[in-house]
Amino acid sequence: MAQNLEAGVDKVASTFADRLADAVDAKRSQLLVGLDPRPELLPVELRGETYLSRGAAADACARFCRGLIEAVAPYVVGVKLQLAFFEALGADGMRAFEDCCRYARDAGLLVIADGKRGDIGSTARAYAAAYLEPDGGRAPLADALTVNPYLGEDSIEPFLQAVRLHGAGIFVLVRTSNAGAADLQDLTLSDGRPLWHHVAKLVAEWGESLVGERGLSGVGAVMGATVPRAVGEARRAMPQAVLLLPGVGAQGATPADVARAFTSGPSSALVNASRPVIYAYRGSEQDWRDAAGAEAARLAREVWRAAGW
Amino acid sequence: MAQNLEAGVDKVASTFADRLADAVDAKRSQLLVGLDPRPELLPVELRGETYLSRGAAADACARFCRGLIEAVAPYVVGVKLQLAFFEALGADGMRAFEDCCRYARDAGLLVIADGKRGDIGSTARAYAAAYLEPDGGRAPLADALTVNPYLGEDSIEPFLQAVRLHGAGIFVLVRTSNAGAADLQDLTLSDGRPLWHHVAKLVAEWGESLVGERGLSGVGAVMGATVPRAVGEARRAMPQAVLLLPGVGAQGATPADVARAFTSGPSSALVNASRPVIYAYRGSEQDWRDAAGAEAARLAREVWRAAGW
Repeated sequence: MAQNLEAGVDKVASTFADRLADAVDAKRSQLLVGLDPRPELLPVELRGETYLSRGAAADACARFCRGLIEAVAPYVVGVKLQLAFFEALGADGMRAFEDCCRYARDAGLLVIADGKRGDIGSTARAYAAAYLEPDGGRAPLADALTVNPYLGEDSIEPFLQAVRLHGAGIFVLVRTSNAGAADLQDLTLSDGRPLWHHVAKLVAEWGESLVGERGLSGVGAVMGATVPRAVGEARRAMPQAVLLLPGVGAQGATPADVARAFTSGPSSALVNASRPVIYAYRGSEQDWRDAAGAEAARLAREVWRAAGW
Repeated sequence: MAQNLEAGVDKVASTFADRLADAVDAKRSQLLVGLDPRPELLPVELRGETYLSRGAAADACARFCRGLIEAVAPYVVGVKLQLAFFEALGADGMRAFEDCCRYARDAGLLVIADGKRGDIGSTARAYAAAYLEPDGGRAPLADALTVNPYLGEDSIEPFLQAVRLHGAGIFVLVRTSNAGAADLQDLTLSDGRPLWHHVAKLVAEWGESLVGERGLSGVGAVMGATVPRAVGEARRAMPQAVLLLPGVGAQGATPADVARAFTSGPSSALVNASRPVIYAYRGSEQDWRDAAGAEAARLAREVWRAAGW
């Protein structure tokens, strides 16, 4: 357990990985729903005023996300908010982002901010403060943040400090789910390994001293589920890391593809589904909330079964 | 020149690189000032209320940045706003960011949003829209954005589209100025090259068809100035790229270290200085604006001389 040394709080904060493991046990689910709100894809009842202003679009997106959070909360352990879609609506969008983070936490869900941030140390410190650390009396916006490793260890250190001191989690991009991932991540190094294997080794090292009571580290990894063989290799290279697996559904992976991510335990991987859940209502007759809830329930069961727990 | 095909505008938009070249000629300067506002480092006259709320801190940061923009505008071609420091102040910070971007453009400065964004294509599209594309009748927030290449070409393509259609610029992280850069960027590939050489080659390819009338591409590169030999290698690998060189001042590089970045022309590189300019007043008796203006003027002259034009 990480000691909360700052802000005068001397109670022991639980680690992200322990909170996650408890949530997985309680809900029998390893599903995250990705909140990627786009004004042009909102249900018609919310779309009405989105063209008036960014503020109106941001409000509509927040209403959409709140509705989704209520609908999926029984079936998922958390939500992953894609920062880009909120940033695209400017400061109003960021207000909606903050609102949705708090709403999800109040609904008992873990919150992953998907920002893929990465910068030199003094700047990464500001990103850690922005998303992972308490602000005065307020809880952190998110439980975990996705981060980009291209700038190396000193760019990750401020995030590791948030893991250490505030019980936060991070997910480092290792091998992503898109086709372009091959352009850098699969490059062969002089010792014959692909670059991403080296990144996986770094992630394992960074996370080694940050393991919670349930045996999992606060330093996780983003592993595209579109390459099942790679998921198995990642599992072996980072035995204590929680693997965050996007790419199920819209990007082509199936729940069965992700099975080998779970060999370190039932909460050792999280499967994210965004579009297939949040836009499940499109082309159906169902209410958008009902459609999202039903699809989340179905996917959660399927992943749980595939994980073999 | 890129044709502005969207938003019903049929006038031809100038390219970022051409706008930059014009500004460099007019001002005899290749200096950018980095706006990295931190509430705890603000001049005492602005610091007063920053502890009351994030909103107050964001307002104070915006006032600081506006004062700096006025002070340095005669000596610099643009400002580089570090998104992390605005994000650390939440939605209020993003409002301050938008305000400062517009203020800088009104002052005739180029605006670089330093966000080091990178994500899969559909998400990168949202980042391009957020920072580089007009929103309804409004000009884009920024002229250029820094981007991270770890997710490969399809993650860069939406930004290339903003360069193509909207005359935007991007700066791809190639070899950064921090110590941790060595952890990934300097890894040796199976063909003997360091990883960052491969990234430089990709940047040159991505930018090849996006060259403006002045011979420079809208696809630039971030090259830490702390390794002068590498700057020369980068220059040869990416002859048409504008090199964005951070690390002068606080990170230890001198203006002379950056000389070889300029062999493709007087506007083929930009030197960024943040802390040495914006916090120049600390430990001096000068007004913070005067101190920043004087240091910007001095650095601009020194870089111009070192560049040899």
